[in-house]
Amino acid sequence: MLRDGRTGLEVIDRDGCLELLAADALGRVAVVEGGEPVIFPVNYALDGDRIVFRTGVGSKFHAAVRGAKASFEIDRFDTEARAGWSVVAVGRVEEATAAEAERLAEVTGLAPWAAGDRDHWMVITPDRLSGRRVGS
Amino acid sequence: MLRDGRTGLEVIDRDGCLELLAADALGRVAVVEGGEPVIFPVNYALDGDRIVFRTGVGSKFHAAVRGAKASFEIDRFDTEARAGWSVVAVGRVEEATAAEAERLAEVTGLAPWAAGDRDHWMVITPDRLSGRRVGS
Repeated sequence: MLRDGRTGLEVIDRDGCLELLAADALGRVAVVEGGEPVIFPVNYALDGDRIVFRTGVGSKFHAAVRGAKASFEIDRFDTEARAGWSVVAVGRVEEATAAEAERLAEVTGLAPWAAGDRDHWMVITPDRLSGRRVGS
Repeated sequence: MLRDGRTGLEVIDRDGCLELLAADALGRVAVVEGGEPVIFPVNYALDGDRIVFRTGVGSKFHAAVRGAKASFEIDRFDTEARAGWSVVAVGRVEEATAAEAERLAEVTGLAPWAAGDRDHWMVITPDRLSGRRVGS
């Protein structure tokens, strides 16, 4: 098991990160907007190693994430046990073409939890994938 | 109950946001570093309406958050029910003075979950506090 030298945290390898990403459905997207960091929680699905979520055109969210460099995060922590893990994926957010969106709809079956027009499919292809486990 | 006109999400008011912040212990800090968004999960405590967490000097995290404009997020979602909420606080991250750190240690009792030197106390005083609930 690999550990981070400074913090002692267990390092989760790429396969472990992808397994955790595949098993979860809710993450957070952080992007830079006007020089400031913004975070949005999103329900998502995994397509290979790509993170897929939906937005509505015209929404503040859509405008902020489209084409942006994003950090996407999932985690699970147990406050009592002071234990848990987090995975962060970093990459650009690209909007899927109509044909690609159709394929993603079939493959992932992803439906937005919130009401309103969310017919734009956004894809993060991770340049970097990293995970840490605490209290293990 | 106030609802967001476009998404239909229930809006959580300031008092509701502070109640949720007081009841939780694990959030995510997003800051901009070299023009890119980065996210770090942190265990935190609330001091009034201020979010308090600890970092180690010399850590990548400490360098990134010190003096930075941050978005801090907590959430709780139920994937089965497709329901949940999120709260986002936006404000600058300031390092507490030694005297202030002593007071915060007494008031919050906050201890870091990860090993390593984490004796620097960081405080976010929110300029903005917003919350949304989905599936309610």
